[in-house]
Amino acid sequence: MQSPLIQELIEAFRVLPGVGPKSAQRMAYHLLERNKSGGLLLSQALSKAVEEVGHCSLCRTLTEEETCSICQSARRATGELCIVESPADVGVIEQSGIFQGQYFVLMGHLSPIDGIGPKQIGLDLLESRLSDGSVSELIIATNPTVEGEATAHYIQQMAIKQGVVVSRLAQGIPMGGELEYLDSGTLSQAFLARRSM
Amino acid sequence: MQSPLIQELIEAFRVLPGVGPKSAQRMAYHLLERNKSGGLLLSQALSKAVEEVGHCSLCRTLTEEETCSICQSARRATGELCIVESPADVGVIEQSGIFQGQYFVLMGHLSPIDGIGPKQIGLDLLESRLSDGSVSELIIATNPTVEGEATAHYIQQMAIKQGVVVSRLAQGIPMGGELEYLDSGTLSQAFLARRSM
Repeated sequence: MQSPLIQELIEAFRVLPGVGPKSAQRMAYHLLERNKSGGLLLSQALSKAVEEVGHCSLCRTLTEEETCSICQSARRATGELCIVESPADVGVIEQSGIFQGQYFVLMGHLSPIDGIGPKQIGLDLLESRLSDGSVSELIIATNPTVEGEATAHYIQQMAIKQGVVVSRLAQGIPMGGELEYLDSGTLSQAFLARRSM
Repeated sequence: MQSPLIQELIEAFRVLPGVGPKSAQRMAYHLLERNKSGGLLLSQALSKAVEEVGHCSLCRTLTEEETCSICQSARRATGELCIVESPADVGVIEQSGIFQGQYFVLMGHLSPIDGIGPKQIGLDLLESRLSDGSVSELIIATNPTVEGEATAHYIQQMAIKQGVVVSRLAQGIPMGGELEYLDSGTLSQAFLARRSM
């Protein structure tokens, strides 16, 4: 009994991650009842981004230009290359300000079951970049999940073959974390990688 | 350091209810990385709905036509008029299938502090509809909140003046509810409105 256009809009909102039928309905009514101009801006931003955003030709991250602003920047150290799974990972590392080198974004991780092999995550591109000698250290920052670890291992082997130094982000107790609430996997890692002081 | 188009899209997603900076970023990356076609469909559905959806001239609900499908329907009893606060409320009542009459959608509730008086929620339209004699019973289904109750009281007075029978949805223990977890307000209502059996 609902208007077809509203029904369509509610269906369309379901493409967003974590949005079920109730949230989708709430979003549709909210925009139509209270913020039509915001809805129009969202529609325009979305269509523009979908049409113009592609991948950086050097690091594969999302950008509307040929190469992204980090790859273009003359201020970044070109010798250090940090491997991450997604553009969101680049965002959090940039926020921390700890890293001044360049990135390589896999846009995923190895997952043979889903048909995602080395080529799908751009490892051929990475290999050719390693072979031209411009990269002196590879810092692997894939997620500490099973797939992330497998991907890290694969890249490590590739780097060794090319004679490039490889490192992996440290795993252990997070800052402000409490031992009491830590999972045993993290705790084991923290024991194994303990540092003398 | 993020692409301006992506930044704009993340900002735009913030207009949605319950969406903070992290969720907005997740939505933007999800669509750009994995579901561009879904994103495009959402953009189109949104702009179309924002442009074409307006209010039903009879019941004020959201619709892209002059009058909504329920007001148009010849099968609905025209004597019973159910007053609700929002189009979403029409949706849940329709889903239950319990009501066969027509609706009047306030699109809000009385809230003098926010400058929302009788006119803003269409009570002038409701009054003229009551005065033409076509409505025999008014069923008030505003939310059992302070504002909803005040709105219900105002409408009740209006209906009495016009000589129309008024009723209000029953309040009490919800089906499947457990006394142990019930708030005292609901429990008091259930005691006061107890039925002989």
